[in-house]
Amino acid sequence: MMPANALGALTPLAPQGGEPLYRQLYDRVRGSLAAGTLAPGDRVPSARALAKELGVARGTVELAYELLASEGYLLARGQAGTVINPALQFSAAAPSLAKERVQEPSAPSPAHDMLWRPPQLLPFQMGVPALDAFPRKIWARLGARYLRGMQTADLDYPPPHGLPALRSAIASYLQVARGIDCGAHQVFVTTGYRSSLQLAALALMHRGERAWVEDPGYPPTRQLLRESGLVPVPVPVDAQGLDVDRGIALAPDAKVVAVTPAHQSPLSMSLSLPRRQALLEWAGAQGAWVLEDDYDGEYRYVSRPLPALASLDRRGRVLYAGTFSKVLFPGIRLAYLVVPKAQVAAFERVGHIFFAAATPAITQAMVASFMAEGHFSRHIQRMRGLYADRRAATIAALERGLQGRLRAEPQPGGMHLVLRLPGERTDQSLASKLLAHGMAVQALSNGWSSGSTDSALLLSFTNCTTTAHAEQLGALIRQTL
Amino acid sequence: MMPANALGALTPLAPQGGEPLYRQLYDRVRGSLAAGTLAPGDRVPSARALAKELGVARGTVELAYELLASEGYLLARGQAGTVINPALQFSAAAPSLAKERVQEPSAPSPAHDMLWRPPQLLPFQMGVPALDAFPRKIWARLGARYLRGMQTADLDYPPPHGLPALRSAIASYLQVARGIDCGAHQVFVTTGYRSSLQLAALALMHRGERAWVEDPGYPPTRQLLRESGLVPVPVPVDAQGLDVDRGIALAPDAKVVAVTPAHQSPLSMSLSLPRRQALLEWAGAQGAWVLEDDYDGEYRYVSRPLPALASLDRRGRVLYAGTFSKVLFPGIRLAYLVVPKAQVAAFERVGHIFFAAATPAITQAMVASFMAEGHFSRHIQRMRGLYADRRAATIAALERGLQGRLRAEPQPGGMHLVLRLPGERTDQSLASKLLAHGMAVQALSNGWSSGSTDSALLLSFTNCTTTAHAEQLGALIRQTL
Repeated sequence: MMPANALGALTPLAPQGGEPLYRQLYDRVRGSLAAGTLAPGDRVPSARALAKELGVARGTVELAYELLASEGYLLARGQAGTVINPALQFSAAAPSLAKERVQEPSAPSPAHDMLWRPPQLLPFQMGVPALDAFPRKIWARLGARYLRGMQTADLDYPPPHGLPALRSAIASYLQVARGIDCGAHQVFVTTGYRSSLQLAALALMHRGERAWVEDPGYPPTRQLLRESGLVPVPVPVDAQGLDVDRGIALAPDAKVVAVTPAHQSPLSMSLSLPRRQALLEWAGAQGAWVLEDDYDGEYRYVSRPLPALASLDRRGRVLYAGTFSKVLFPGIRLAYLVVPKAQVAAFERVGHIFFAAATPAITQAMVASFMAEGHFSRHIQRMRGLYADRRAATIAALERGLQGRLRAEPQPGGMHLVLRLPGERTDQSLASKLLAHGMAVQALSNGWSSGSTDSALLLSFTNCTTTAHAEQLGALIRQTL
Repeated sequence: MMPANALGALTPLAPQGGEPLYRQLYDRVRGSLAAGTLAPGDRVPSARALAKELGVARGTVELAYELLASEGYLLARGQAGTVINPALQFSAAAPSLAKERVQEPSAPSPAHDMLWRPPQLLPFQMGVPALDAFPRKIWARLGARYLRGMQTADLDYPPPHGLPALRSAIASYLQVARGIDCGAHQVFVTTGYRSSLQLAALALMHRGERAWVEDPGYPPTRQLLRESGLVPVPVPVDAQGLDVDRGIALAPDAKVVAVTPAHQSPLSMSLSLPRRQALLEWAGAQGAWVLEDDYDGEYRYVSRPLPALASLDRRGRVLYAGTFSKVLFPGIRLAYLVVPKAQVAAFERVGHIFFAAATPAITQAMVASFMAEGHFSRHIQRMRGLYADRRAATIAALERGLQGRLRAEPQPGGMHLVLRLPGERTDQSLASKLLAHGMAVQALSNGWSSGSTDSALLLSFTNCTTTAHAEQLGALIRQTL
C-alpha cells in the first residue's frame, strides 16, 4: 500500500482551482511519482477510501484513476487492488529493477531491457498478435469437446516429441503455407522458441562453437545461444538482410547461423534470394546449421508470403523454428522445430520424455483440432487483412502526429514498424519517456544492436484497435525533435 | 503391416491338435517374434482378414489377439490397427532402439534404459498415479468454465513465474500439507521436475560444482545435473536414507545435494530425523543447496506424511521441488520449485519471460481452481486410501504367485514396491523377460545404482486395478529362481 502521505498527506483538493478535481488528483499522483513518494508497484487506496479521505465524490477519484490507468500509470489487479504500474520502474531505474532484468554476466551493460515486459499489455508492445481478434468462442468449444472426450490414456505423459495429430497438422500446414517438404516425424513440439533452440543445441551443437547472429537482431537468440555454451558473433544486416559475405569474413568457422529470413527481426526486410542461396551454399560446405526463426513469416502485406528458407534446403542444413505465439496467442506456450530427415534420430535421442514432453496434451490436442478443422488457415488469412488495415491506420495516425517530421520505414511485412530517428542513441531516452506515458515502444540501440548507434523506435501495430495512441505517440515524438 | 509369411505362410492351424486353435495362433505369433519374422511395431492383420486367410472363426483370432494383448505382445491402436508392441524392442535390442535411449556420452554403458517408457501404460510402470481414479468430470467442468470466461488478457504471455492464483494455492497447500512456511512469491511454476532443476541450476549453481546424488537414486536427476554442468557424486543410502557422513567424506566441497527425503527414490525409506538435521547443518556451514525432490511425499500409508525437509530449514538452504505429475496426472506438465526468501530475487532474475513462462495459462488456472475449491485435498486423501488398498492387494497377489519364495520389502509409503532378488544383477535379465510379457518392471541394478550389483525389481502398484497381473508376475519370477 502506498505511504499515507504519498498523495500530499491527503490535503484537500482545491474545488475552486482552475483544474477539475479529477485532474488535480491525476496531477498529484504523477507529481508523487516524480518526487519518489509513490513508487512503482505501490498499491493505491480504493476509490471509495480515497474519496472519503479527500472529501470528494467517488466518481471523481474513479475518473482520475481511469485516466491514470489509460496512460499506463496504474494497473488494476482485480482483487489485489490497483497498483502503480511496475513498468514505470523501467524508466525510473529504481534499484529493485535489477531483479527484473536479465542477468547476462558476459555483457558489460544492461543491454537486455527489451527482454523485460510490463505485466500488462501496453500500446505498441512488440511480439504480441491481435489478442482481441482471436476466435475465443471456437477455441472454447474445441477445448470443452476435448475435455469431455478425455480418456484415461490422455492423462499419461504425452508422447515426448508431440502428439502425432499435431505433428501431422504442422507438417501439412508447412507444406502448403511455407513450401517446406517435411514429414510429421521431422516436427518436434516444444514449449516455445527458447526450448526449440535448447533442443537444437543439445542435439547438434557443441560448447565453444561460434554462431552468427544478426546485428541488429533479436536479443533472446543471442542470450539463448550463449546460455547453451555457444559464442555469438554479430553479423551486420543491410537492405538484403543478413550479410553472408561479412559473416564468412568475420567467422568462417561458425557452426550455427541464427537468421530471420522472412522479416528480419527487428528491421523487417526479407533475406534476398541471392543471400539465401549463398547462405545455404556456405552452410552446406562448412557443415553449419542454419536456424531459421520464422516467427512471423505469414504476415506479408504487399504480396504473397515468401517460401521459408527451409524450402530451398537441399543439403539438410536448416532447422526451422516455428511458433504459435504469433499466429494464435502467446499464452498457449507452443512452438516447434522442424529438423532435416538425417537429423531426426539425433533429436529423438535428446528429446526423450524428460526433456521434451513439456507441453500438456490439452493445448496440443486443441491446436491439432483447430488446424485440422480449417480454423487455423482462416484465422491467419483474417489476421493478414486485419494487420494490413491496422498497419496502414497506425502509419497514417503516427505521421499525422509527427506532422511530416519523420516517416515510418516501408517494409513488406511483419508485425511492427520501424521509425528511424536522427542522432545517436536518441531512441533510448525517448523510449523511456514514452513508457512513462504507458507506451511500450522499444529503442533499436538498446540491446537489439551490438555495434551501431543508429536510433530508431520499434512499435507493433497488431493491437492498435484505435488510432488515438499512434497519433499521440507521433505528437510526443515530434515534441522531442 | 507384418510380412505375409510371418505367421507361418498362413499354413492352416491344426484343428485336431492337442491345443485349442486360439492357443496355436497365440504360440505362432510368439514363435514368429522369437524367430524375428515378426518385429516390434509391425501391424498385424485384422481379426477378420486373418480368420478368412486361416479358415477359422473370427472369434478364434480375436481370442488369440486378446490373450496376446493382455500379455503385452500386441497393442490396439484404434483406427491405426493392432501392432506388435514396440516396447518389445526394449528386450530385443533391435538396432533402432538406440534412438529411443538417452544419450549420455559420459556414461560408458547404456545405463539409462529406465528413462525409456513404452508408448502405452503397461502394468507396474513406475511414476504414474492411478489414472483411472482421476476425477475427469470435475476437471472437464473446471476447464470448460475457464474457457468460457477467457478474456483477451488471458491470451497474453502468462506471468513468467506462474499465475498468482496458482502460486498462492501452492503456498497454502504446502503450509498445511507439508509444513513449509512460504509465501506465494517463493513459488516458481515450471513445466516439470526437469525445468525446476534447470531453473535452480541457472539461478544458483556453477559449472564444475560437485553435487551429491543418492545411490541408488533417480537417474534423471544425475543426468540433469550433468547436463547443467555439475559433477554428480554418488553417495550411498542405507536404512536411514542418504548417508550424510559418507557424503561429507566423499565430497566435502559439494555445493548441491539432490535428495528424496520422504520416500527415497527408489528404495522408499524415509530420511531419518538425525540425518535431516545433519544434512541441513552441513549445508548451512558449507553454503550448499539442498534440492528436496518431494515427488510423492503425500503417499504414506502407515502414519501421517512426514513434514518436508524444507519445513526444518532455518538457514535458507533448501530448494523444494514439487510436481503435479504424481498427485494429479503426468500429462498436465506442471511442477514448481519453492525457494528460500533470500533467493527469490536470483530466481526472478533468471526466470524471466523467455525462460519460465512455459506453462500455458489454461492448465495453471485449472489447477488453481482445482486446489482452491478443495478438489485437490480430497483427491489426495482418496488416493492415499486407494493406494493403501492397491498396495496391500498387490503385495498379497505377488506373494501368492511367489509361493513364499520372496517377500516385498515393507516400506511406509511411496508409489512402488521393492522386491529384492538373490544374486548379482539378476534383475536385468528378469526385467527384460517380464517386459516381453508386457510388464514394465524395472531392474534396480540397471542405471538406478552406480556401484552396487544388488538385484531388485521395482514395480508400481498405483495402476493395479486387478490382482491378476501381480499374481502372474509372482509366478513368472518364481519360475526363474
